[in-house]
Amino acid sequence: MKLATLKNGTRDGQLVVVSRDLAQCVAVPAIAATLQAALDNWDEAAPQLKQIYALLNQGSATGAQAFDEAQCHSPLPRAYQWADGSAYINHVELVRKARNAEVPASFYTDPLMYQGGSDSFVGPRDAVYALSEDWGIDLEAEVAVVTGDVKMGASDEEAGQAIRLVMLVNDVSLRNLIPNELAKGFGFYQSKPASAFSPVAVTPDELGDDWSGHKLHLPLLVTLNGKPFGKPNAGEDMTFSFAQLVAHAARTRELGAGTIIGSGTVSNKQGSLHGSSIENGGVGYCCLAEVRMYETIESGAPQTGFLKFGNTVRIEMQDKQGASIFGAIDQTVRNYQERS
Amino acid sequence: MKLATLKNGTRDGQLVVVSRDLAQCVAVPAIAATLQAALDNWDEAAPQLKQIYALLNQGSATGAQAFDEAQCHSPLPRAYQWADGSAYINHVELVRKARNAEVPASFYTDPLMYQGGSDSFVGPRDAVYALSEDWGIDLEAEVAVVTGDVKMGASDEEAGQAIRLVMLVNDVSLRNLIPNELAKGFGFYQSKPASAFSPVAVTPDELGDDWSGHKLHLPLLVTLNGKPFGKPNAGEDMTFSFAQLVAHAARTRELGAGTIIGSGTVSNKQGSLHGSSIENGGVGYCCLAEVRMYETIESGAPQTGFLKFGNTVRIEMQDKQGASIFGAIDQTVRNYQERS
Repeated sequence: MKLATLKNGTRDGQLVVVSRDLAQCVAVPAIAATLQAALDNWDEAAPQLKQIYALLNQGSATGAQAFDEAQCHSPLPRAYQWADGSAYINHVELVRKARNAEVPASFYTDPLMYQGGSDSFVGPRDAVYALSEDWGIDLEAEVAVVTGDVKMGASDEEAGQAIRLVMLVNDVSLRNLIPNELAKGFGFYQSKPASAFSPVAVTPDELGDDWSGHKLHLPLLVTLNGKPFGKPNAGEDMTFSFAQLVAHAARTRELGAGTIIGSGTVSNKQGSLHGSSIENGGVGYCCLAEVRMYETIESGAPQTGFLKFGNTVRIEMQDKQGASIFGAIDQTVRNYQERS
Repeated sequence: MKLATLKNGTRDGQLVVVSRDLAQCVAVPAIAATLQAALDNWDEAAPQLKQIYALLNQGSATGAQAFDEAQCHSPLPRAYQWADGSAYINHVELVRKARNAEVPASFYTDPLMYQGGSDSFVGPRDAVYALSEDWGIDLEAEVAVVTGDVKMGASDEEAGQAIRLVMLVNDVSLRNLIPNELAKGFGFYQSKPASAFSPVAVTPDELGDDWSGHKLHLPLLVTLNGKPFGKPNAGEDMTFSFAQLVAHAARTRELGAGTIIGSGTVSNKQGSLHGSSIENGGVGYCCLAEVRMYETIESGAPQTGFLKFGNTVRIEMQDKQGASIFGAIDQTVRNYQERS
C-alpha cells in the first residue's frame, strides 16, 4: 500500500491512498483525515486503507483523482519523533580516515543515533531554505521507517514488527556548523535544520523481495544539479538493520506511533577510492561531505564545495522494472530572506 | 490563563481551562479539543479561552467541574518538539569543577541545547518507569515554555513574543548511560527517556511581576521521598533567558507552534559549598547529580545514590502567597517490568 499527504492549507494536510504506479490517488476522510490519525489507529485503519488501495489499482475507487507529487507535503508534515541513525559505517570510516582517526570498536555493535527536529518538515518539492551559504549546506540521502507503538526494551524482532511504512529522506545538514556544535558535547541542533521526505510512504510488503532482513535492497538515486551523483545500494554495507535501529531507539523508552527512524546517509564501501564517483565507474555518493572526505584522503584537501542558492537535489528509488517507488524528493536550495 | 489536559482515553487528552486557584476546570471543545489545536490556532483561540477563564474565576462558567491534578496528562501529552537548554551555568561549572576541567568561554554566550524525545511524555502523577536501577535514574527540575510559530533567525525580542505558555518539567535523566552516549559524539538519546510536565501550563501574564526579562523569578520547590531537597530561585543565575533560548533554537530553522523549550536544571550559585543543602541552610538542588558533584568536590567521591524503585519526586512552584501555580509533578519511580 502507498500513502501520501496532500497540502490542503492545514498543518497536517490530507491523507490520500496512492496507486502503485503513482498515477492516481483518493482521499479517505471516512477512515483517517491525516496519516498520523491512521498511525494512531493502525490496526483498524490499515485493512480499510488496503481495500481502497486494491480498488484504486483496479481503477474502480470512487473519488479517485490524478496524483501530483508537487502537491505533496512530506507524508508526516510534522511528527512526534524523528531520530536518525548512522547505519552505514563506511560513511563514519571515511570521516575518521580523512582525519587519521580510528573508528571505535563499539561503533560496529552500538548504533549512532541523534534526535532530530520534527515540528515542521519540508515538503518533497519545496525549497530548502537557509540564511547563509556559509553554513555549508549539504544533502544526506537516506531511507527511513515509520513505526507504530513500541514498548520499552523491545527485541529486534518486536521492533521489526512495529515498522509500518518506509520512505526516503533528505536529511539536510549544515556542515560548517557541525564541528563547533558537536564540540559542545550535546549533539546536533542548529546544524540539523528541517528534513524533507519522499512524496509517498509505502508499507514494507509493497517492496516484495527488495525488503528483506529489515533492509531495503535497491539503489538510492541521487541527482545533483541535473547530473547523476549517487546510486549506492541501500541494502549493502548497512551495519544495523531498521529493526536494530528501532530497538536501539526503544531501549530506555516507549516509542509513540508515528515515530520516524532514519538509516543515516547511505554509503557503500568501494574498493578503489578513484573509482568512487559515478563518472569514474563507482556508485557515487549520498552527500557532499563524503566526496570531500575522498578528496581529502586522496589529495590532502577537499575541492568540492557545499550547496549554493539555486542548486538542486533529487532523490529517488526505482523498482527493478524502473518505476519510481516513492516519488521524488526534488528541491532547490534558496535564501530564506527571499522566500515568498 | 491556566490550561491543562485531562486524560480521556485518547492520545492527546482533553483541553480544559483551569481556575486560578486550581479548584475548578471546564472543557472547551467548541474552542479547541486539545492544547495542540489551541496552539495551532492561538490568535483566534486565546481570546475565547481567556473569556472562559474569567467566567471560571468568577464561578459562573457553564459546565465547570472540580479540577483533579491526578487526572491530568502533561499539558501536551505528546509534542512536535521538545528541546532543552542548559541555562544555569552553575550546574555546568559544578560538573566541570568535579573533574577539574575549565568551562569553555563560549558557554557563557552560546547556549547548550539538546533535542529531546517528545512522542510520549509521562503524566505529572504517573510513574517514571525504567528497566533497571543501574541506569542511574535522576530527576532534573526545570521550567519550560511553549512557543507559537517562530521564524528562522528570529531576534531575541521576536522569540520572546512567541512564548505562549510556561510550565514545570521533570527531565528524567539516566546518569550512568550518559558518559558512554556522549562519548559517541551525537548527544543524548537513550540517556534521556520521557519527561513529565506540570499538570497546568499558564500564560506569562498570569505570573505578573514574577515573570520579567523572560525569566521566572520564584523558587522551584523539589521534594525527594517526602523531604525538602531544593528551592533555588529560577530567576537567579539563569545565564540565558527563555527569549534567548527560543532564539537559539530558531537560528537555522522555523519552530512550529507547540514547540517546548526547557531551561535546563535550575541551579543557584552558592558561596559556601558546605551551605548548599537545605539542611545546611542552602537552597538545595534540582537533581541528584549536583549533590554528587558537591560531594566529589568536597570529599573526592559521591556518597548519594541515584533514584531507586519506590522513590518519589515532587516538583512544584508557589506564588508569593503560597498558592501552587502549576500544580505538582509528583511521581514514583517504578520497574517497567511490573507496570499494570
